[in-house]
Amino acid sequence: MALNPKKVNVCLSPALLPFYELENTIVVVVDIFRATSSMCYGLANGANAIIPVAKLDECVAYKENGFLLAAERDGEVVEGFNFGNSPFSYTRDKVEGKTIVLTTTNGTSAIQQCSSAKAVVIGSFLNITALSDWLKRQDDHVLLVCAGWKNHFSLEDTVFAGAVVGRIKGAERELDDAAQAAETLYLEARHNLSAFLSKASHGKRMQRLNITRDIDFCLEEDQVSVIPIMQGNRLVCLVEPKQVSHYKHPA
Amino acid sequence: MALNPKKVNVCLSPALLPFYELENTIVVVVDIFRATSSMCYGLANGANAIIPVAKLDECVAYKENGFLLAAERDGEVVEGFNFGNSPFSYTRDKVEGKTIVLTTTNGTSAIQQCSSAKAVVIGSFLNITALSDWLKRQDDHVLLVCAGWKNHFSLEDTVFAGAVVGRIKGAERELDDAAQAAETLYLEARHNLSAFLSKASHGKRMQRLNITRDIDFCLEEDQVSVIPIMQGNRLVCLVEPKQVSHYKHPA
Repeated sequence: MALNPKKVNVCLSPALLPFYELENTIVVVVDIFRATSSMCYGLANGANAIIPVAKLDECVAYKENGFLLAAERDGEVVEGFNFGNSPFSYTRDKVEGKTIVLTTTNGTSAIQQCSSAKAVVIGSFLNITALSDWLKRQDDHVLLVCAGWKNHFSLEDTVFAGAVVGRIKGAERELDDAAQAAETLYLEARHNLSAFLSKASHGKRMQRLNITRDIDFCLEEDQVSVIPIMQGNRLVCLVEPKQVSHYKHPA
Repeated sequence: MALNPKKVNVCLSPALLPFYELENTIVVVVDIFRATSSMCYGLANGANAIIPVAKLDECVAYKENGFLLAAERDGEVVEGFNFGNSPFSYTRDKVEGKTIVLTTTNGTSAIQQCSSAKAVVIGSFLNITALSDWLKRQDDHVLLVCAGWKNHFSLEDTVFAGAVVGRIKGAERELDDAAQAAETLYLEARHNLSAFLSKASHGKRMQRLNITRDIDFCLEEDQVSVIPIMQGNRLVCLVEPKQVSHYKHPA
């Protein structure tokens, strides 16, 4: 059954999720600095799966299973954990063949709040073309969910959402006001993303934490071609066409 | 006591209000189509006061007092009420010397949610210069609250917020990400506000309701010089310098 029109909406804060329909909707969770960038990078580098959990104690509960435990709060690695959410902790030598349990300040909680959606996938500049091309082929509504910062609007997540809106919009897709605004912001930002986002509060926060190398990497387009997708409680690589076939006709 | 830095923040939906501090903060409530535009116009046209109430039955409760009752839901006048929130219902011949009790879909509820702020004032393109000039002289944080549409982001409210941000920002004022984004959107929109906002969902909704005359009027800058301010349960005209003096040193 084809939806008409197919919506492309942007949810600017997880706190606004209750006002969106998740039925017949593919949710794209966006947390550019740095959770969803690292998820894309880790799965592209051969991690078996990433289990996103909202709370630290959920993360600790996986300790005995041989999993890598990753925890970030307020931009820093939590003491006692293997690593946080710097993409450079998700290189092949560290993650290949491993399952990672990850909790972050904003992104992992947003993922859990979207569990009733038809599918939950992960977006970042690192996989933007693979993601957008796949979204264009789907017959569902698309909701880009900006993880933001503690429920506040975040410039980098919104600009990324706008980049995706621009790539997937078309005559058969209807944009909400937030999607229109996000695309306008991206069109302003795209000529120099880094300069545009240097005004952003989270960028400033990360500069204070001396992780500008992470920021630069998270703004590089198309470093990977994977699309992380939630299956049960974990993120794995979406595999087409088998994955899409399974996803369209769930058992 | 001077605040340093003084913040200029934009709250993109009333649902995000719980994440903002209202202490030492002047809140500007924005509902361009049409509640806050009509409030400015009505007070400029000699209304004694406007009592914003969130619910229809609160509005009805004032019926016996000789007040004008105004109620809008989903863009239309509610049956049995004198009028809704079209600015053309707030002309001098209709409102002079009257007190109006008003409930609207979004704006009046947003006003009530901000009651713990240091001051709550009303913004619209109709009073933008008077409002911005006054805000620049204040020593408090400024929070522009976009009433939106049923807790969703709205383009016209955000663009207006961005116009105010651009007028009041300065070295001593720190903008949050939403304020940066709102200003960027305004700079894109300002050359042809009407065309830019024609993409907005609420503009489309109002075009369907055949109230484009209202839309055009609500986008006209500086038609009035009043600043509606909440005193107790009602909006009245802010009067300087007496008003400011009282407001800075509450009893």
